[in-house]
Amino acid sequence: MSGTDSSRAPDWSPDGPVFVLVRPQLGENIGAAARAMWNFGLAGLRLVDPRDGWPNGRAAATASGATVVLDAARVFPDTAAAVADLTFVYASTARPREVTKPVFTPEAAVADMRARITAGERVGLLFGPERTGLETDDVVLAGAIVTVPTNPAFASINLAQSAVLMAYEWRRQGDATPPVRLEGEATTPAPVEEVGRLIEHLETELDAAHYFWPEHKADALRLTLRNILRRAPLTEQDVRTLRGVVRALAEGPKRHRRRRDGATPPTGDAQP
Amino acid sequence: MSGTDSSRAPDWSPDGPVFVLVRPQLGENIGAAARAMWNFGLAGLRLVDPRDGWPNGRAAATASGATVVLDAARVFPDTAAAVADLTFVYASTARPREVTKPVFTPEAAVADMRARITAGERVGLLFGPERTGLETDDVVLAGAIVTVPTNPAFASINLAQSAVLMAYEWRRQGDATPPVRLEGEATTPAPVEEVGRLIEHLETELDAAHYFWPEHKADALRLTLRNILRRAPLTEQDVRTLRGVVRALAEGPKRHRRRRDGATPPTGDAQP
Repeated sequence: MSGTDSSRAPDWSPDGPVFVLVRPQLGENIGAAARAMWNFGLAGLRLVDPRDGWPNGRAAATASGATVVLDAARVFPDTAAAVADLTFVYASTARPREVTKPVFTPEAAVADMRARITAGERVGLLFGPERTGLETDDVVLAGAIVTVPTNPAFASINLAQSAVLMAYEWRRQGDATPPVRLEGEATTPAPVEEVGRLIEHLETELDAAHYFWPEHKADALRLTLRNILRRAPLTEQDVRTLRGVVRALAEGPKRHRRRRDGATPPTGDAQP
Repeated sequence: MSGTDSSRAPDWSPDGPVFVLVRPQLGENIGAAARAMWNFGLAGLRLVDPRDGWPNGRAAATASGATVVLDAARVFPDTAAAVADLTFVYASTARPREVTKPVFTPEAAVADMRARITAGERVGLLFGPERTGLETDDVVLAGAIVTVPTNPAFASINLAQSAVLMAYEWRRQGDATPPVRLEGEATTPAPVEEVGRLIEHLETELDAAHYFWPEHKADALRLTLRNILRRAPLTEQDVRTLRGVVRALAEGPKRHRRRRDGATPPTGDAQP
């Protein structure tokens, strides 16, 4: 999907959760996490002892323009240092081992984060290294665990993908976009009476074409047509277009002939 | 995150939405989409004219074990053929161009999908090529558009990441995981009266140590301690551990000496 417009002001959450990538291995995953963060309006990225050092060219390539996040990323030697200034830390892991903590779904975790942030807290979310996930020593620093409900037969989520869905969930809960809206070139919905005129026009022409036959099925046929047209979410432009379609079909080949011959009167022509 | 257990039965949605990747360029993105789909219990993958042919080794490497999805993927020459048997199609795009259609958030789209599937429909979701997104000719085949609300200054979402968040959203709306649960080795919450005994024990020892001083602050100090311990979500094991801590601190160095010397009686010792 595209649609980026760098001339538009960013719509982001300066107080949003910090994403802490603990000992990340692949620059691509750091870059993908940064990209997803900025897509969803988060910019606080911290890295604990990244395997390939920092900065990382592959991270920059994968971030695909989310340089504002990468440039501001802070690097720490260990997890405790990375979260030292935060008041609440969540650990993203599927395996709570040797720790007894509340385990949140992503949805509940974000709701908790938003409540804490509103109350003035500074929160962070730990993500573990690709191969091994978070160590117990990292998880112990957290006040809660976030576990993504998955297919138990295939539960292992890629680091970047975890970051994507947490960032998405963050934005989802703060987003005011209407769930459904009509969009496009000409989106004014047609008033009921205009759709009525279209139906009337169609039925008149179909009557003339002896479409409503046999007689005892006519009412059912009319009802079916009316249901189709009333059910379709038609715009004003759609109704105009469909009336032109009815006209063209009703006039048939003579219309084309008229046009070709330069004749103008649309009605009262002799039959061809 | 890890936690895959291939011995566990997959928990998936056989009737879930089909993901249709239209002219995907990078095998990595096909593989990442397949992995995310299987993470969240979706398995219907269709590919329209993949740039590098099919099968694709990079897709297999990135799918990281979601071979059940890749092996069952179907390849079509064009988008119309790929969606021919479906009853409703959504197009994932940020740019509805030259089309007038309802635009859903991912959340509303999944709710709509679930309602249609419950009613027996077969639904699919189109994702466009990495660089260009869906063409108008593809979008026209869809009954609705899905647009992910993003930071307007950085709206371009990676193909694989779009697939991740749609698959996540699919699962989220059908998932029955409790929002918050306590997990770990010993998770039986302590009854109120056991926490009460811990508080009593602590206060007795602190009294003996002349902690509650000056007198006029004693009540406030007691209240603070009680609040701390009542607020903490303690398990039965936690309470046993904390009582041991109070005992150890109260007994002080003599405890260690007793142990070292092989002495056993815990009380009635002479002061050191």
